[in-house]
Amino acid sequence: MAFELHERLAADTLLIADLPLCRALLMNDRRFPWVILVPRREGLRDFDDVAAAEKPNFHAEIDLASEVLREATGAEKMNVAALGNMVPQLHVHVIARFSGDAAWPGPVWGVGTAEPYGEDEARALVEKLRLGFHG
Amino acid sequence: MAFELHERLAADTLLIADLPLCRALLMNDRRFPWVILVPRREGLRDFDDVAAAEKPNFHAEIDLASEVLREATGAEKMNVAALGNMVPQLHVHVIARFSGDAAWPGPVWGVGTAEPYGEDEARALVEKLRLGFHG
Repeated sequence: MAFELHERLAADTLLIADLPLCRALLMNDRRFPWVILVPRREGLRDFDDVAAAEKPNFHAEIDLASEVLREATGAEKMNVAALGNMVPQLHVHVIARFSGDAAWPGPVWGVGTAEPYGEDEARALVEKLRLGFHG
Repeated sequence: MAFELHERLAADTLLIADLPLCRALLMNDRRFPWVILVPRREGLRDFDDVAAAEKPNFHAEIDLASEVLREATGAEKMNVAALGNMVPQLHVHVIARFSGDAAWPGPVWGVGTAEPYGEDEARALVEKLRLGFHG
């Protein structure tokens, strides 16, 4: 079955790159530098649902996303989470956090309203992250 | 340097078992069946800080915790997260979620006040989870 990105994830994000396993997306919310990784496989819901043979790629891509985002933003802390209570398709949040950001020290989910990036700003950040992933 | 559990984690949890890498703890909040995994190494903060040689154990123990907790509770959804904005010592939350639980469909952090288990209830659940981890 072909992979199809959940419509809510498609609406809320910008494409960064396709990694060996996951699609890497940038959450379109300039308050929090926030990557979402979605394994390009159908029918996955929970973090441990990834096929055994693909788990090494899955975990390596999560760590890579942390490194790329930390490097690109100078984040003080990374948050990594697979929740999926609202969007059932397995997706992993990798979020750069700063003391004093709009949700600090709480989690980012459900806090206020997303502030979309400006067009140039989005293009620059996506390009920077894409280079990081492919570097 | 010897491993020492952060005092906040020690105060909020009950010991389940020491796995090859992580200490497995039960959050003492009966509203949410909730395991916390803490790698028994000093100086780790972010999810990708675990030494390369120990990452396979780390990831396997996260998946094991999901399986054990799902099996023990019949959870509909598992939430997995490493946040650590308040408690800097690396710890991974593995939480059994049910539609209609006290935070559903939002995340559990910061919602209301923890309700400690009764003594017998805690002993029974810890024992069930310990058997799951060692099964």
